[in-house]
Amino acid sequence: MKVSARNLIPGKVKKVTIGMVNAEVVIEAAPGVEIVSVITKESVERMGIKEGSEVKAMVKATSVMVVTD
Amino acid sequence: MKVSARNLIPGKVKKVTIGMVNAEVVIEAAPGVEIVSVITKESVERMGIKEGSEVKAMVKATSVMVVTD
Amino acid sequence: MKVSARNLIPGKVKKVTIGMVNAEVVIEAAPGVEIVSVITKESVERMGIKEGSEVKAMVKATSVMVVTD
Amino acid sequence: MKVSARNLIPGKVKKVTIGMVNAEVVIEAAPGVEIVSVITKESVERMGIKEGSEVKAMVKATSVMVVTD
Amino acid sequence: MKVSARNLIPGKVKKVTIGMVNAEVVIEAAPGVEIVSVITKESVERMGIKEGSEVKAMVKATSVMVVTD
Amino acid sequence: MKVSARNLIPGKVKKVTIGMVNAEVVIEAAPGVEIVSVITKESVERMGIKEGSEVKAMVKATSVMVVTD
Repeated sequence: MKVSARNLIPGKVKKVTIGMVNAEVVIEAAPGVEIVSVITKESVERMGIKEGSEVKAMVKATSVMVVTD
Repeated sequence: MKVSARNLIPGKVKKVTIGMVNAEVVIEAAPGVEIVSVITKESVERMGIKEGSEVKAMVKATSVMVVTD
Repeated sequence: MKVSARNLIPGKVKKVTIGMVNAEVVIEAAPGVEIVSVITKESVERMGIKEGSEVKAMVKATSVMVVTD
Repeated sequence: MKVSARNLIPGKVKKVTIGMVNAEVVIEAAPGVEIVSVITKESVERMGIKEGSEVKAMVKATSVMVVTD
Repeated sequence: MKVSARNLIPGKVKKVTIGMVNAEVVIEAAPGVEIVSVITKESVERMGIKEGSEVKAMVKATSVMVVTD
Repeated sequence: MKVSARNLIPGKVKKVTIGMVNAEVVIEAAPGVEIVSVITKESVERMGIKEGSEVKAMVKATSVMVVTD
């Protein structure tokens, strides 16, 4: 399977917070580098995402902004 | 300045491709880890983004998907 | 700090509704002009956003659609 | 027609820049308050958007971030 | 009313799950083809969206990714 | 590979328009039902997307709005 999304960052799930519709998934990409994702609760359950899961964070290039000092 | 966006990943700009409206900015976050951003050409010019610029990639948590094998 | 996002609209927070993962922030940009944002509960707490806070609503240009009659 | 998007800001088109795929539309919402939108060139043509057009900028609440000083 | 968003897919609401801030709306676009939307609870209430409602799912072209095998 | 994105709609590529940064991909999901995607030119080239390609359109649930009459 190939995806047009340009950003795929591997990491390990550190924390999952489940709400009624959405869930917040905190992924540790490198020591001290966390990526936070909000996806539906349903996807967390369907994919079996939990602390320790090996996952990739995926982001479409148009969703990435650039910041400078 | 504080921003609600949960993801801020520092890196160095590796390549900038300018179109008529948008521009693609490739950021090297770590050796071999690239983050690609599409922002307006105007922002690239206003911020003076070019190869070698120290920047941060910023992503709202709702724009992050999760992928597993 | 400079941000590639093209839209920054100042206003005052009128109402905050907190959920388990997300929060809804209603910002009054001008009398009768409200801007509604959904961000994570965590960002609301970290930034201390509450009724009366002076904030800016920030939107990437690609997230803005255009409507005509 | 009713739309779930929570943000609808009226204004007048000030400038349109056409690329090969996308177009940038600058909308003046109030004196000195500009909103920038990137939509497809095709939508600009289909809707007849040009300088002086009365339009509304529309944004989904999840696309709005919050910034504080 | 004309909208720049390029994708408008008609369907019938099959299920609505309400959270504290957001709601998940499952739309049946064709037999076996479901489209899932997360919008604010407030929009669901304001628009009177419920099981059986005739609606359209609307998506901006930049939010659509492409996947191949 | 499993993806958290809730919407995956199969179709056949009908038209590809290439710009300098982005490309527009029109996908026919069913007779008369088109889905339009804007992705980077680079992804179109890397994935070999062209007229006639069998693809899936993928959309995160938070990017889907709901419209009623």
